[in-house]
Amino acid sequence: MNTPPLRDYERTVHFADTDAAGVVYFAHLLRFCHEAYEEALAQLGVDLRQFFSNAGLMVPITEAQVRFLQPLYCGDRLRVTIDPQRLDSSRFQLTYTLYNARGDRVAIAHTQHICLQEQQRVPIPEPLSRWVKSAPEDASDRED
Amino acid sequence: MNTPPLRDYERTVHFADTDAAGVVYFAHLLRFCHEAYEEALAQLGVDLRQFFSNAGLMVPITEAQVRFLQPLYCGDRLRVTIDPQRLDSSRFQLTYTLYNARGDRVAIAHTQHICLQEQQRVPIPEPLSRWVKSAPEDASDRED
Amino acid sequence: MNTPPLRDYERTVHFADTDAAGVVYFAHLLRFCHEAYEEALAQLGVDLRQFFSNAGLMVPITEAQVRFLQPLYCGDRLRVTIDPQRLDSSRFQLTYTLYNARGDRVAIAHTQHICLQEQQRVPIPEPLSRWVKSAPEDASDRED
Amino acid sequence: MNTPPLRDYERTVHFADTDAAGVVYFAHLLRFCHEAYEEALAQLGVDLRQFFSNAGLMVPITEAQVRFLQPLYCGDRLRVTIDPQRLDSSRFQLTYTLYNARGDRVAIAHTQHICLQEQQRVPIPEPLSRWVKSAPEDASDRED
Repeated sequence: MNTPPLRDYERTVHFADTDAAGVVYFAHLLRFCHEAYEEALAQLGVDLRQFFSNAGLMVPITEAQVRFLQPLYCGDRLRVTIDPQRLDSSRFQLTYTLYNARGDRVAIAHTQHICLQEQQRVPIPEPLSRWVKSAPEDASDRED
Repeated sequence: MNTPPLRDYERTVHFADTDAAGVVYFAHLLRFCHEAYEEALAQLGVDLRQFFSNAGLMVPITEAQVRFLQPLYCGDRLRVTIDPQRLDSSRFQLTYTLYNARGDRVAIAHTQHICLQEQQRVPIPEPLSRWVKSAPEDASDRED
Repeated sequence: MNTPPLRDYERTVHFADTDAAGVVYFAHLLRFCHEAYEEALAQLGVDLRQFFSNAGLMVPITEAQVRFLQPLYCGDRLRVTIDPQRLDSSRFQLTYTLYNARGDRVAIAHTQHICLQEQQRVPIPEPLSRWVKSAPEDASDRED
Repeated sequence: MNTPPLRDYERTVHFADTDAAGVVYFAHLLRFCHEAYEEALAQLGVDLRQFFSNAGLMVPITEAQVRFLQPLYCGDRLRVTIDPQRLDSSRFQLTYTLYNARGDRVAIAHTQHICLQEQQRVPIPEPLSRWVKSAPEDASDRED
């Protein structure tokens, strides 16, 4: 009945992700989060090329936030978990936790998304809808 | 007596800033903000190569947030204003407003920064300290 | 009669352009070149959003090369000149020279482009055609 | 006796890699190549954080070239092989072939590297030296 939980996203920090301070450039953390979102969509069976094109359904990000807890270095192994949460019939929020190889949290982040078709709000479509529904009940009273 | 206000940062949206949805990739908005921060520092007389190295004073970003109001396209002309605000003796927040060529706000964002030396908090140094002091008094009761 | 030469492209090296070795990440030099190409097109009156979309005429890059002569650092001021050259009726090459603030050449690069419509070669359209025609005659015996 | 061949590098094309033309931004192909180089180094036992810092041995890229054979789209699965080749006692070249999921070549590229210590040429150190030695003899008459 229930879909199995999605695998976490893992990747190595590349040299291109770093900056002259020797660590990952701050805004790239949100890129890692988006990569995890893409992998979750792929696991849900979404065609990424179609989904992230400029035709049909658009799901733009309306807000993004990230808190940096520990620096990340070139070669570090990163794991990203996503906690999806429905906000209303056309909007959802993804909360990301990023861990290093020792299991320390290195960052937490969230993005908010809205489903649009021809610039009008539309309901969150399948399979996204099923995914964000899978958020635990008590997630609803969390304030971020 | 008072330092003159800093010039706003302006730049054109490049093709490399866009994604397959035809607009600027969301996380790059924070890059535009950081570029504006760099230009403000340069106007204050800061040596950027030294400031953004991995030696001596470090001013890492501890939190970043951005709200997306309108999409940006390749070739769009962008203007970024910064409102600096002292949070405590070693921490400050920069609030960015991004405008397109028509003067519409396309995004608002903020970053929080902490001043560290050998991983210990240190007071905000000059000329940063003078800059963040220049925040209007009533900024202190703003909640973001 | 003759169109005046285009202005060179100038920009500052941003923190996001650097890597953990403290200098500009190698592949970003080609991004600077493309920015210069975009500014040249804008000066020629091209609508960048339309030109760099996925509809109608496509002018993909078929080859790119860059030689690195000197490192670039955060805050460095960069100037890029472009020498356009027609290769055949549908193909052209842009040769870029990148200078630092002291006037030293820091890199030379080129990109080759092909004009396609519905995946078929088409003649280089105006105003690009006029621009690449303006290459000096002796450019033809230059090695690439 | 012989070290086993290194595993190829594989990764998925991310949304952040694409541009408004709907395909991967040209210069990012070189980033994929560098990621493959990093993974090869990691397999050779190199500490990436140390290797790609601004201290001690520096191995800057002196030239890079890429030929684009087929476009790449968000979600495409990519495989990169590296053919290393010693150029002289302190210089080596890496030749990359990029394949899509169907096994088609989508790009070929190369980078040239020089080993420097305090801005003086030094011999290619282990384990890099062993790796680039492993290039087949007949690689020497390959044109670049």
